[in-house]
Amino acid sequence: MEPFALGRALSSVRESTPLVHCITNYVTVNDCANALLALGASPIMSNEPQDVEDITALCNALVLNIGTLNQQTIAAMQASAAKAEELQHPLVLDPVGAGASHLRTRTASDLLDGYSISILRGNMSEVKALAGASATTRGVDADPSDAVTEENLSVSAAFAQKLAARTGAVVAITGAIDVVADASRAFAIRNGCALMGRITGTGCMLSALLGAFAGARPDVPLEAALAAVAAMGVAGEQAAARMTAVDGSGSFRVYLMDALFNLSAAVLEEHAKVSRI
Amino acid sequence: MEPFALGRALSSVRESTPLVHCITNYVTVNDCANALLALGASPIMSNEPQDVEDITALCNALVLNIGTLNQQTIAAMQASAAKAEELQHPLVLDPVGAGASHLRTRTASDLLDGYSISILRGNMSEVKALAGASATTRGVDADPSDAVTEENLSVSAAFAQKLAARTGAVVAITGAIDVVADASRAFAIRNGCALMGRITGTGCMLSALLGAFAGARPDVPLEAALAAVAAMGVAGEQAAARMTAVDGSGSFRVYLMDALFNLSAAVLEEHAKVSRI
Amino acid sequence: MEPFALGRALSSVRESTPLVHCITNYVTVNDCANALLALGASPIMSNEPQDVEDITALCNALVLNIGTLNQQTIAAMQASAAKAEELQHPLVLDPVGAGASHLRTRTASDLLDGYSISILRGNMSEVKALAGASATTRGVDADPSDAVTEENLSVSAAFAQKLAARTGAVVAITGAIDVVADASRAFAIRNGCALMGRITGTGCMLSALLGAFAGARPDVPLEAALAAVAAMGVAGEQAAARMTAVDGSGSFRVYLMDALFNLSAAVLEEHAKVSRI
Repeated sequence: MEPFALGRALSSVRESTPLVHCITNYVTVNDCANALLALGASPIMSNEPQDVEDITALCNALVLNIGTLNQQTIAAMQASAAKAEELQHPLVLDPVGAGASHLRTRTASDLLDGYSISILRGNMSEVKALAGASATTRGVDADPSDAVTEENLSVSAAFAQKLAARTGAVVAITGAIDVVADASRAFAIRNGCALMGRITGTGCMLSALLGAFAGARPDVPLEAALAAVAAMGVAGEQAAARMTAVDGSGSFRVYLMDALFNLSAAVLEEHAKVSRI
Repeated sequence: MEPFALGRALSSVRESTPLVHCITNYVTVNDCANALLALGASPIMSNEPQDVEDITALCNALVLNIGTLNQQTIAAMQASAAKAEELQHPLVLDPVGAGASHLRTRTASDLLDGYSISILRGNMSEVKALAGASATTRGVDADPSDAVTEENLSVSAAFAQKLAARTGAVVAITGAIDVVADASRAFAIRNGCALMGRITGTGCMLSALLGAFAGARPDVPLEAALAAVAAMGVAGEQAAARMTAVDGSGSFRVYLMDALFNLSAAVLEEHAKVSRI
Repeated sequence: MEPFALGRALSSVRESTPLVHCITNYVTVNDCANALLALGASPIMSNEPQDVEDITALCNALVLNIGTLNQQTIAAMQASAAKAEELQHPLVLDPVGAGASHLRTRTASDLLDGYSISILRGNMSEVKALAGASATTRGVDADPSDAVTEENLSVSAAFAQKLAARTGAVVAITGAIDVVADASRAFAIRNGCALMGRITGTGCMLSALLGAFAGARPDVPLEAALAAVAAMGVAGEQAAARMTAVDGSGSFRVYLMDALFNLSAAVLEEHAKVSRI
């Protein structure tokens, strides 16, 4: 991936202001909306089955996040996914907590199997649960034993590529090292910082941003995914650089949003650490 | 409108601490609660049909926001509106996304037609959709072609006045220039800043504040609406004035809440740009 | 209570990273998640009846907050409480708005009577409503006439102890002076600051933190409750100390999260004002 492709993708978001329909959890929904606005996209949230088809039809991309799923939102996700597929809109799936409950694993699997998912993003525990691999999980966080490391990077990449080949989705497995793959190529992204795990919503925000990038660049989902993952990671680094001794996770959350707002194509290209695996 | 009326309205809120029942969306509900507290009012949220009548009865005003409506909250809005009307409490309606889906347009129309709405607040696309005028919409944002400008200001004011006459509500159409009208008078408010459109919830927060002002001044809904719209706009300007080069939308959101918290009657009167159209 | 017990409890949270399942309101859910992460615990939210048993089973503690209860979440709370009881997990109940509506009073009473509650936390109006005492309420805030004062402290302590004896729960009544009691002992905590009442969610966050402390120290719920209440109060004081003239409730909220993040066992022990009543 040429570095300038990342900056170009960011510029596309800023220029086209994609509308992103999110059916998401009630914990981080405000962060998702603000992250989309900070980046230059425009959020719409709707999760009533009778409302979602109209809203999906208006938008450029759909993001499904099962973080606090319920029977109503599951029905809404199914209806929206069908509409997005009909209109050939990019569809991002965030299987929050897959593996942590039967309902989450089944719901995410049904969505992954039933619709054309453009980008699947989760931590390794969640993605393993969807792949049918034996997975442990620690709630909505990855099990430490599932961490992507320098040692298991090529195995992780092969796993992601295999799942991408089976599902047709770009697979983004995020953690200390992020792995992004389609059926034929896999990349590692080495951006971000540990503080991102000390606030809620960095994963959810990234999934929302994946919707924005995919909405702006629907023809190249791998490039869109790499740009989104790198943008989030670079923004996290910029936020961490502002931290003072009295600052904590509250300030970091504010700085992260500021960094997304101020992120330029040039800074993204300069700081992104994306490499082919 | 005499400038001191705005400051007097703000002082009324601070002195009477009105309780405001909000049935609102899950994206910006936290911002609405914090904005009410910052201003000196007190928020209560409840959206279960079996709970809302008791809560409405306790409160001084009711705010209905359809941003993430569902069948349960629609039923709750109807029940609350009936109770508020019975008790002659001020009722604010925010028709988020009217025009963007059939369900939203119908739900907002049913509320506007079925109950005594004190103040209707939306962007021009939403208000046009409710007025039955041909309207386009861009999700939950106004369509650019619907912007109120210096050129179309008198037409926009006449439109607002006509809708106010038909519905009995004070009509507040917000955007770069805000228009607030009852059946006999129309005003333009030229406060605020572009950054307010780069965070989610400024419209929703304003609707919540309309509930606070109307709860404190139920006898003069036009004055309450002007004070709320001007207060939000002036707070936005004060927040923008604190922005530094590294700040972005995350910091702006914090500064906006700070500005509402610190807003004095004197500052509101000095900075409000309210003029008769 | 030896002061070092508070620091030891905080260290236990930091070392064991308890998973806390929260079924809570949509107003402050993000604050609850971030407060848990700031303290060193890990949040999971789930409120779908078919999902909650699996999630409760994964976790170390369960927090039930009825702030925006509905029929679905009431069913989820019942199912989760049964599972937590079966697994002998600590269970925290926050009866937000008990006394303000029949549904809230009944739901909270049913949970308190039907399950083994480890810690009950509310303001005096809410706790009185649950105790069947004549109580007035001002929505989700305590009625001023219910304030715990130096004058009525021993009466308030006796009331808390009596309710603790009847229910088996540690009872935490929070306000300007906090009272925490089990059947045999009562303590006053004189930390915190007035600004904590000017943002939404300090009570909800405290209830979430009670879940973290109880999850880390399930054998000593009184000690866990004292540590959580003192930690929140000391964090509030540290946040207030950072306030500048232009800061308001927006900045205070950020500083409060920072203070929870940075709170050390030593600072907690030094600043906690816990005394036997």
